Amino acid sequence: MIREKYARLAYHRFPRTTARYLGDRRVDTAPPEEGLPDFHPPPPPQEDPYCLDDAPPNLGYLVCMQGGILFVYDNKKMLERQEPHSLPYPDLETYTVDMSHILALITDGPTKTYCHRRLNFLESKFSLHEMLNEMSEFKELKSNPHRDFYNVRKVDTHIHAAACMNQKHLLRFIKHTYKTEPDRTVAEKRGRKITLRQVFDSLHMDPYDLTVDSLDVHAGRQTFHRFDKFNSKYNPVGASELRDLYLKTENYLGGEYFARMVKEVARELEESKYQYSEPRLSIYGRNPKEWPKLARWFIQHKVYSPNMRWIIQVPRIYDIFRSKKLLPSFGKMLENIFLPLFEATINPQDHRELHLFLKYVTGFDSVDDESKHSDHMFSDKSPNPDIWTSEQNPPYSYYLYYMYANIMVLNNLRRERGLSTFLFRPHCGESGSITHLVSAFLTADNISHGLLLKKSPVLQYLYYLAQIPIAMSPLSNNSLFLEYSKNPLREFLHKGLHVSLSTDDPMQFHYTKEALMEEYAIAAQVWKLSTCDLCEIARNSVLQSGLSHQEKQKFLGQNYYKEGPEGNDIRKTNVAQIRMAFRYETLCNELSFLSDAMKSEEITALTK
Amino acid sequence: MIREKYARLAYHRFPRTTARYLGDRRVDTAPPEEGLPDFHPPPPPQEDPYCLDDAPPNLGYLVCMQGGILFVYDNKKMLERQEPHSLPYPDLETYTVDMSHILALITDGPTKTYCHRRLNFLESKFSLHEMLNEMSEFKELKSNPHRDFYNVRKVDTHIHAAACMNQKHLLRFIKHTYKTEPDRTVAEKRGRKITLRQVFDSLHMDPYDLTVDSLDVHAGRQTFHRFDKFNSKYNPVGASELRDLYLKTENYLGGEYFARMVKEVARELEESKYQYSEPRLSIYGRNPKEWPKLARWFIQHKVYSPNMRWIIQVPRIYDIFRSKKLLPSFGKMLENIFLPLFEATINPQDHRELHLFLKYVTGFDSVDDESKHSDHMFSDKSPNPDIWTSEQNPPYSYYLYYMYANIMVLNNLRRERGLSTFLFRPHCGESGSITHLVSAFLTADNISHGLLLKKSPVLQYLYYLAQIPIAMSPLSNNSLFLEYSKNPLREFLHKGLHVSLSTDDPMQFHYTKEALMEEYAIAAQVWKLSTCDLCEIARNSVLQSGLSHQEKQKFLGQNYYKEGPEGNDIRKTNVAQIRMAFRYETLCNELSFLSDAMKSEEITALTK
Repeated sequence: MIREKYARLAYHRFPRTTARYLGDRRVDTAPPEEGLPDFHPPPPPQEDPYCLDDAPPNLGYLVCMQGGILFVYDNKKMLERQEPHSLPYPDLETYTVDMSHILALITDGPTKTYCHRRLNFLESKFSLHEMLNEMSEFKELKSNPHRDFYNVRKVDTHIHAAACMNQKHLLRFIKHTYKTEPDRTVAEKRGRKITLRQVFDSLHMDPYDLTVDSLDVHAGRQTFHRFDKFNSKYNPVGASELRDLYLKTENYLGGEYFARMVKEVARELEESKYQYSEPRLSIYGRNPKEWPKLARWFIQHKVYSPNMRWIIQVPRIYDIFRSKKLLPSFGKMLENIFLPLFEATINPQDHRELHLFLKYVTGFDSVDDESKHSDHMFSDKSPNPDIWTSEQNPPYSYYLYYMYANIMVLNNLRRERGLSTFLFRPHCGESGSITHLVSAFLTADNISHGLLLKKSPVLQYLYYLAQIPIAMSPLSNNSLFLEYSKNPLREFLHKGLHVSLSTDDPMQFHYTKEALMEEYAIAAQVWKLSTCDLCEIARNSVLQSGLSHQEKQKFLGQNYYKEGPEGNDIRKTNVAQIRMAFRYETLCNELSFLSDAMKSEEITALTK
Repeated sequence: MIREKYARLAYHRFPRTTARYLGDRRVDTAPPEEGLPDFHPPPPPQEDPYCLDDAPPNLGYLVCMQGGILFVYDNKKMLERQEPHSLPYPDLETYTVDMSHILALITDGPTKTYCHRRLNFLESKFSLHEMLNEMSEFKELKSNPHRDFYNVRKVDTHIHAAACMNQKHLLRFIKHTYKTEPDRTVAEKRGRKITLRQVFDSLHMDPYDLTVDSLDVHAGRQTFHRFDKFNSKYNPVGASELRDLYLKTENYLGGEYFARMVKEVARELEESKYQYSEPRLSIYGRNPKEWPKLARWFIQHKVYSPNMRWIIQVPRIYDIFRSKKLLPSFGKMLENIFLPLFEATINPQDHRELHLFLKYVTGFDSVDDESKHSDHMFSDKSPNPDIWTSEQNPPYSYYLYYMYANIMVLNNLRRERGLSTFLFRPHCGESGSITHLVSAFLTADNISHGLLLKKSPVLQYLYYLAQIPIAMSPLSNNSLFLEYSKNPLREFLHKGLHVSLSTDDPMQFHYTKEALMEEYAIAAQVWKLSTCDLCEIARNSVLQSGLSHQEKQKFLGQNYYKEGPEGNDIRKTNVAQIRMAFRYETLCNELSFLSDAMKSEEITALTK
C-alpha cells in the first residue's frame, strides 16, 4: 500500500492485480488504461521529428526551490503569499515514517521466515510447472505462426550512451576520423586551436597502430570489485582527452563525434528492426545550461531514432563538484537539474528545443558506485538540500528521495498540461547496502541491477508482489560485482520477478556486434533457458521500457496492459499462454494468502 | 615414442621438442619444415579454382583390398606374385601390442599418481604465472601495433557442413526458396515429379508461417544425454524430406540448395576476413559412387572458398547399412570409402573432378555417438574387415584402426607422387569409453572434443606431452554431454594442452550470426579469459587446422613451425612472448624430468 501511494503520486506503474488484493476499489471501476505513464508515440515516418512548432503557450507560473523541492506558483502574488499551485508536494516526515516502516519489516524475524518460505515455494512451483508443462509450452510456440525469438521485440532497458557502441566500433570510428580529417580543429586549449593530429601527437600515438588492446576500454579481471578502475576504462587509451572528444556531448565539436557514433548504433538497431534501446545521457547538475546544450546536441546532430528512447542519468557526485567549488550546496545541484525542466514545461515556447527533446526522454536514472559508504543517515532531521553545503556526499537514500520528489511534482505539472511524464529508474542494488532497495521500493518505477535482492527475502518478496521491473545485466555484473554463475537472474525469473536483460555497457563488456543478442545468447546457454523463458524476458523488457502505449500495443498486443493471459498476444510475444496463466495464478495465490490474513486480522480486531 | 612412430608413418605431426627429449636424433639434423603435412595452398585470386587441366598422368598401379587395407601393386604381375609396391603397410599385430602397452600404462597405479601430480603442478604453475605476469602480458599486447583479438586469424576447427548455417539462416533460406520458386520440381517419388509447393503441402505447412520454433532444429534441454534426439534435430520441422532437400549434397537438385547455403556462409567468412572454417562433408561408404558425386557437387555449384578447407566425415553406421543389406561386409564399406581415393591418386587424369576436389580436402573425421556400447573387443584375433559380415557394428577402436591404416598407405602413395596428404582428425572422447582416447593417441593427428581426458590423468598428461591438438566445443557439450561450467576447456588451456575453440553445429547450438565469435565470447565471459588466452586459443586453431604452410606463415609468422617463442610472431598472433616462453619452458621442464629418468634407468640397467 505504501508503494502504491508513492507510485500513484508520481504516475509510476502499479500492478492492478496487486492493488485489487490490497483492497484498492478504484481499479475495479477505472478503465484499465488509466494510470499508464504518458509517453509520446514516435512521430509518423513522414513527419519531421525535429519540428519545433507545436510548443504550447506560456502559463506564466513561477517556480521556486524550497528545501530541495521545486514549488510551482500561479503568479508573483501567490509566491509572496507562499500559496503554491495545486499539485501534490511530497512530505518528508510521512516519507521517513513510511521508510522506517519498511526498514522494520525487512528485519522482522517472522516476516523474514514467511517471505523466505514463500520464495522457496515459488521456485519449487516453477520447477514443477517446467517439468509438467515444458513440452506443452513449446508446442504452443511451435504452432504460433510467423513469430519466434528472433522477431519478438526486445528492449535494451539499461545501457549508457557513452558505452553503447562496442570496443571494435569505437576503434574503427577513431581510426576513420583520423584518416579522413586529421587536420580538423577538434579542441581548444588556452586559446590555442588543436587539430586531431596534434591530439594524437601529444599522446605519442599513431591511430593506425591503435588496437582494441591499446584502446583498453574493455573491462576484465582487473575491474572486479574495482568500480574506480571500471570508471577509468571510459577513457580510451587512458586519455581523458579522447573521452572528451569522442564520448561527450559537450566539447569543441559540439559532441559531433559522439553523435555520429550513437547514430551508427541507432542505424544498426533500425536495421535489426526488432531491437530497441534506452540509452542514458548525463546531466550533472553543475549548471542549468546543461539542459539546453544537451537538447541542442540532440537536435543539431539529428540524433533521433525510432528505435531509441532516452533516459537522463544523474551521477551522484555532488561531493566532487562541491570540493572543486563548482556548487555552493546540494540544493543548487537539484535546481540545476530540475528547474530547466519546470521552465520548459511551463513555458515551452521559450524553450522549444528542450521541449522537443523532452518528448523523447522517458525517465531518469541515478548512477554511481553504490558500494561507497556514507556516514550520514537520512532522516527528517537531515539538513535539507539548501543547507547541505558540506563537502560530504549525501547518502544514496537522500539522492533518491529528492530526485523522486522533484520528478513527482514535475510529472503532476506535466500531466496537467497534457505533456509526457517521466519514470524514475535508478541503478539500485548493484552493490552496497540493501537499504538502497528500500528507497527504490518507494520511489522508483523500476530499477537496474537489483542483485542484492538475493540477500533480503522480504524485499525480494515485496519486489515480486509489486512486480517491480528489474533490468539485469549479468555480463556487467560478471566483470564488476558477481560471477556469472552466481547471478540470481535465473532464480528471479523462475520465481516470477519481473526481470529483463540489458547490456549496461557494450563497449566494456561485449565482444560481438550484437551486444543485446550476446547477452540473451549467453544467458540462454549458461542457464539453459527455453524459448519461452527468453520470450518472457523480451516481453518484460518491452513492458518495462519507456516505449509509448501505441508501440506497446503494436509490439505486445492490443491488451498488453491487462494482467494475466488476457494481456498476452502470443502472435506478437511468442510467450505461451500456459506460462502466462501460471504466472498470473501464482501471483493471485500469493496475494490472496496475504489479503485473507489481512481480513482475518481485521475480524479479530473487530471482535476484540 | 609409440605415438611418434605412428605419426611419422602417416605424415601426421609430432612436436620436435618432445621428439628431441625422447632421444630422436633425426630432429637435430632435419630442416624444421620437414615432416609438416602437405596441403595445397589456395590458388591465387586470378586463377580458376576449378581448373581440371593439371592432372598428373596414370601410374598404372593396381589396388587391391586385403584384410581391410588397400595394397598397391606396380602391375598385374606383381599383384599375382603378391609383391606390393614399396610403401609402408601397417601391421595389426604390432599395433595391438602397442595399444595394449598404453592400455596397461593408463591403469598403472604409480603412473596415474605421477601424471595426476604433474597435471596439478602444471595448473598451479599457470596460476602463479598468471598472478605474476598477467599485467606484463597485457602490456606486451597493448604495445603490439595494429593487431588485437578481432584481427588475429581464427579457424573453426570442428564444424559440420550440414549445420554450418545458424537456424535463422536456414529458416530465411527455406522461405526464400518457397517465395521465389514454389513451382520448381525438387524431388521425384516413384516416377512422379514433386514441386516445392507440393513438398510443403504434403507436410501441411505454409513456409510463410514457419518460425525458428516450428523449424525445431535447435538443441536444448531435451537433447541432454540424448544423442538420438540431437540427431533427429537435423530434420527441419521433423521432416526428413526437408533434410534431404536442403541439407544434402545428393538429391534431385544435385544438392543445389545446400550448396547455396554453404556458399552464403562462406561469403560471410570471407567478409569477416579473419575467420576460417573446416566443415565436414559426409562419405558413408555405401557405394563407391559417393566420391565422384561429391566432387561433382563441389565443382558444379562452385563451392570453393578461400576461407574454407574441407574435411570428410565417415559416420560409424556400418550396422545400419548392413541390416538394410546395402553392404555385404565392413571391408566393402572401407573399400567404398578409400578405393576411389587410391584410384584418383594413381590415375588423376581419369578422375579429374575428384583429383581437383581432393586438393581442398585436408583430412578425415570419424563421427557418431561414442556412448553406444560395443560387445566386441578389438584385438589381433578380431575378424578382419573382409570377413566382418555380421550385423553388429565394429567397435570404435576397430573403425579408427582401419581408417588410420588406409589413410596412412594413401598418404605415403600421395607423398610419393607429390600430392597433398590427409590428416586423421576423429571425434574422440566426447562420451563413451576412455579407451577411445588411446586409439586416437596412436592414430589421430588431432581430435575433436576430448572431454574424457578429464577422467584419465595418464592420457591427459600424454596428450599434453605430445601436444595433441584438441578442438573443443563447449556450447555443443553443454547441450549434449556436459554443462558449460563443468567443461574442462579452461583447465586444459591453463595446463598447456593444445586446445582450440570450435562450433560443431551452429544450426543447433548458436544464437547469433557470428557463431565462432559467440563461442569465443561466451568462453571469455564465463571463464574470464584474458586477451592473451583468447589469442593463444586462436593461434592454436590455426596450427591445428589444415590451412597450408604458406597460409600459416602469413597468419602466424614465417617461423610458425618452430617451437617456443621463436615460432611466435606477436605482430601476427597477438600472443605475448612471455606466454610463449612460459609454455615452452614448462613443456621442456616436464620432458626433461622424463628423459632424465629414462637415462638413469638406462644407467641402472647397464651397471647391473
